Amino acid sequence: MIAPTVKWIGDCQGVLELIDQRRLPGEFTLLSVREVEPLYEAIQTLAVRGAPAIGVAAVYGPVLALQKLDAGATAAEGLECVLQTCDYLATSRPTAVNLFWALDRMRNRAQEVVADSEATLAQLHQAMLVEARAIHDEDIEMCRRIGQNGAPFIADGAGILTHCNAGALATGGQGTALSVMFAAHEQGRSFKVYADETRPLLQGARLTAWELQQAGIDVTVLCDNMAGWLMRQGKVNAVITGADRIAANGDAANKIGTYSLSILARQHGIPFYIAAPSSTFDLSIASGTDIPIEQRAKDEVVQFAGTPTAPEGVAVYNPAFDVTDAQNITAIITERGVIETPGTESVREALA
Amino acid sequence: MIAPTVKWIGDCQGVLELIDQRRLPGEFTLLSVREVEPLYEAIQTLAVRGAPAIGVAAVYGPVLALQKLDAGATAAEGLECVLQTCDYLATSRPTAVNLFWALDRMRNRAQEVVADSEATLAQLHQAMLVEARAIHDEDIEMCRRIGQNGAPFIADGAGILTHCNAGALATGGQGTALSVMFAAHEQGRSFKVYADETRPLLQGARLTAWELQQAGIDVTVLCDNMAGWLMRQGKVNAVITGADRIAANGDAANKIGTYSLSILARQHGIPFYIAAPSSTFDLSIASGTDIPIEQRAKDEVVQFAGTPTAPEGVAVYNPAFDVTDAQNITAIITERGVIETPGTESVREALA
Repeated sequence: MIAPTVKWIGDCQGVLELIDQRRLPGEFTLLSVREVEPLYEAIQTLAVRGAPAIGVAAVYGPVLALQKLDAGATAAEGLECVLQTCDYLATSRPTAVNLFWALDRMRNRAQEVVADSEATLAQLHQAMLVEARAIHDEDIEMCRRIGQNGAPFIADGAGILTHCNAGALATGGQGTALSVMFAAHEQGRSFKVYADETRPLLQGARLTAWELQQAGIDVTVLCDNMAGWLMRQGKVNAVITGADRIAANGDAANKIGTYSLSILARQHGIPFYIAAPSSTFDLSIASGTDIPIEQRAKDEVVQFAGTPTAPEGVAVYNPAFDVTDAQNITAIITERGVIETPGTESVREALA
Repeated sequence: MIAPTVKWIGDCQGVLELIDQRRLPGEFTLLSVREVEPLYEAIQTLAVRGAPAIGVAAVYGPVLALQKLDAGATAAEGLECVLQTCDYLATSRPTAVNLFWALDRMRNRAQEVVADSEATLAQLHQAMLVEARAIHDEDIEMCRRIGQNGAPFIADGAGILTHCNAGALATGGQGTALSVMFAAHEQGRSFKVYADETRPLLQGARLTAWELQQAGIDVTVLCDNMAGWLMRQGKVNAVITGADRIAANGDAANKIGTYSLSILARQHGIPFYIAAPSSTFDLSIASGTDIPIEQRAKDEVVQFAGTPTAPEGVAVYNPAFDVTDAQNITAIITERGVIETPGTESVREALA
């Protein structure tokens, strides 16, 4: 990677630097974020995207918010500011649970600090930065472990299909699904990756292909509707994707199209793996039926760079995610280990 | 339709007018074709596309070629010119069989005419125009009958999914798959059509949505990778697509992505129909394994209107078609009737 996807520069008075993923790979631009509102916008417009990366970016929100607070404010006022910031950022996108999980950690840490009646605003601010950095560091380590745990699933000479981008651009570290590929590559195995372009926003063509190319991994881009036929040609030995939220029974929300891939993989006898950290699990949700699915604007589908691709006024169906049934998932690769045959029991045990 | 997809203007000295489908729906342009080479280019670059429409456009090729021939040439020289023109046009695209079927009719008719040793070049020319117009007229009638035969499969209130464009823009008449929808609509039934955008060239978003919108049929565009999830939501009661070549056992080549849809439909208990004329069958081919699949240029996938959508130099997989197994096809709707449970026996009987 040319630069980390999310980078905090400075101490409590700092700047959050994000790779602007809307312009990749044509243009490499860094966004310098100094306030909470541009951070919200960066998440909502997918300048920063990918479940873990959204969480890692959002936790710097309270740090940015406290920078703007009058230095004479009390710690209690600081806490109020942190809680409001977390509530606000939590409305930026609805599906990925890592965002809520990460903001909850910030809220809890802020409450812990301010529970001490002697705590100052400066102490709260410092604690927020430390907590944000800890979440960020844990994310990097999580990616590394997912890579190690998943690498054995990539055999020498294999064809691996992936969807959307679950790489370094989607996390604080080296990715989830792509971390598995990076690890297998580092272990010296040679394999071929097929990257679904991933309509409508082409994260596969733009981001995954770019990351794999930079890493020297053999990558081929295809349209999403070609994946089934590719499987039929015997070119795919495993499908590996990320996830945005996993229910207690192992049902996994991920980028729209993942559900179809899981059915096509099963039909062709191909193992289907999800690579995701434990922070992607939402044990408060029994099954995938209850995962909220973000519906996005129609222009994402019927415009490209401002040029219409469909007749004016046509109706559009544009869910950003779908839910893959646990029964179609061969295994979930987490930083804590591999959950084979995911289900309520195996998920509970793995996360205990 | 604003204008027919393929239109011959004039007598033996005439002009072939084609709607330039590369620019739709943003721009409505008519191509005036006066020579064989621009006709070849129009087919190859998809200015005119859709299996029946390619056939109908190509049969005017011999008429155009004879226009350019010296009026003093012999009928035998005219025949040579017709045969060369047919051979040349047959190399424009490899998968749709209607092109070869239609050109064979022109070859056979030319040979018939010149078999009479008294035949003149003018008579050959006239016979070529008459045969081309006959093929064109039969295509219009074929579309009408397919519509009538298929309309009963669309129930009031149904949700119908289609892929690519098998409408008036793909034929000389009102289409194949879309003709079924136009007929059901004319019969007063109300239903909803979901049009896969159909990457890479977006024939669904650009052409199908445009045709249905003009006909006053409720149409919603979606990305190809959303179709499975739409089925899972219970929104799809039937899938209806066209075909480019059907083998003797009922295996059907159609736009890439159709194979995946057929598997997804079966998985969700949704009937899957192919609407295609008898000229789409290639009984010389036993099964779909032997249908040649056109591989198209990588830029179709990794560029949009000249803007790159993937990193430079990335490898691309871009087959234009795939083959749906007969066992995944509920019925094939032809102008001669409906072939339920397609297979070698039922196909042979239907076409006898």
